Amino acid sequence: MTDRSGGPFDRTVFYVSDGTGITAETFGHSLLTQFENLRLREVRLPFIDSDDKAYDVLRRVAAQGEADGKRPIMFSTLVNARINAIVRDADARILDLFSTFVEPLEQEFGTRSTHTMGRSHTAADTAQYKRRIEAINFSLAHDDGQSHKGLADADVILVGVSRSGKTPTSLYLAMQHGIKSANYPLIPEDFDRGRLPDMLYRFKHKLFGLSITPERLSEVRNERRPHSRYASLENCRAEVKQAEDMMRREGISWLSTTTKSIEEIATTVLQALDLRG
Amino acid sequence: MTDRSGGPFDRTVFYVSDGTGITAETFGHSLLTQFENLRLREVRLPFIDSDDKAYDVLRRVAAQGEADGKRPIMFSTLVNARINAIVRDADARILDLFSTFVEPLEQEFGTRSTHTMGRSHTAADTAQYKRRIEAINFSLAHDDGQSHKGLADADVILVGVSRSGKTPTSLYLAMQHGIKSANYPLIPEDFDRGRLPDMLYRFKHKLFGLSITPERLSEVRNERRPHSRYASLENCRAEVKQAEDMMRREGISWLSTTTKSIEEIATTVLQALDLRG
Repeated sequence: MTDRSGGPFDRTVFYVSDGTGITAETFGHSLLTQFENLRLREVRLPFIDSDDKAYDVLRRVAAQGEADGKRPIMFSTLVNARINAIVRDADARILDLFSTFVEPLEQEFGTRSTHTMGRSHTAADTAQYKRRIEAINFSLAHDDGQSHKGLADADVILVGVSRSGKTPTSLYLAMQHGIKSANYPLIPEDFDRGRLPDMLYRFKHKLFGLSITPERLSEVRNERRPHSRYASLENCRAEVKQAEDMMRREGISWLSTTTKSIEEIATTVLQALDLRG
Repeated sequence: MTDRSGGPFDRTVFYVSDGTGITAETFGHSLLTQFENLRLREVRLPFIDSDDKAYDVLRRVAAQGEADGKRPIMFSTLVNARINAIVRDADARILDLFSTFVEPLEQEFGTRSTHTMGRSHTAADTAQYKRRIEAINFSLAHDDGQSHKGLADADVILVGVSRSGKTPTSLYLAMQHGIKSANYPLIPEDFDRGRLPDMLYRFKHKLFGLSITPERLSEVRNERRPHSRYASLENCRAEVKQAEDMMRREGISWLSTTTKSIEEIATTVLQALDLRG
């Protein structure tokens, strides 16, 4: 169950699924961000996989509608036909995400849908799943230049100054895409020498740089080490300039993470290195 | 760009978006798993945010359709009306995910959609984003019982035997939900003493257990340390039994991760501890 923020709310949005509800929530949430000034309570109701749970949903939706004084919105990705038939009676504006599109796809493919649970978040045994877990372990072992062993196996090596966003991006690439992502900090010693850390030259084709504005970097570093030289705007200006100069000189593709989400950075890295996600 | 597996393929599915395309891909992929025996090449086309890029999409889709001998499927979450108008001419079966549902929502809310880019994956400055980065840092610092400092700040502390899935679940909870998740291994010394590690008793209300079948655990451990006592089926049987006995005795909720995806485990943890994602 998800309830994204504090009240007060005008209305409640339910994400109902026989699985995790992640698809319904991702989709519904994206759609709802196109409406402004609505105060929406978002509630995820996952694993609705029995008649009893389906009837619970009806009761819960009815009670919430009464409390809000407005009928709820419901995004549903129920696959099971019987459970879907029960939930469809809910006193809510129901947007049935799957059944809306299953029919045109059936026409297009000339085949019937199985109407069974998608495998997208369920197959814990598959090669893809194993790849993902291995990638997470790899990224943890190769965070912040911890280990040089195995860099040859990396799909990507992110470089950039400390706190430019390398760690979250590496973990996201591993978690969501099964990409083995190492990350390597660029530090003042590298700038003094005017060269990348030596062991990176062999892997130049896998390098991708992250940068950030000095102002934002100083802010982020100040949260960690307030009033340090490390966090000072002056030092951040110098480090960022030197890092960007070095990446330009070495011909490393890079982007500024300042106003970007982890998803946007990761998507850009995949595109730039033409990696399969 | 995403291309999930090797060929040969019957047909190509494009996920087209002015943002990352994650919503389109998550949704489309879930839907497509309900069709069996289709060999689909899935290609994500993110950041389609200019006329030029929109025309590139048309060319790319046409070329792919010709190569496949079947017109592609396109899931689109384009928000910009002008770009959407261009892409709508693609020679593909187009499923326009947003516009299908925007209208019923406009009716329901009695208000117009802004028809501008959703904020779901874009707002790098928000409180939610900061919370997420802090949670990732917290989970990294509190992985595998590394640090006791700050356990009071944890939203959840996962416990279980080594390799039961604690680390990926912790990172996922942090990354996707901004949940501060620590994890703490249950080791033979704990079983010999017949007690949880001492510092965990204070935080018992935050504990959630992960277990796994001995067979699967032995398999996973064998990949790490082949032919070790640690990985032997006999030792895994003993550890799993002792861990499950301890969790039962201490009244800790737990689940078996054996056939579960990270998303399913995380969703169950959120439900069990009634955490807001």
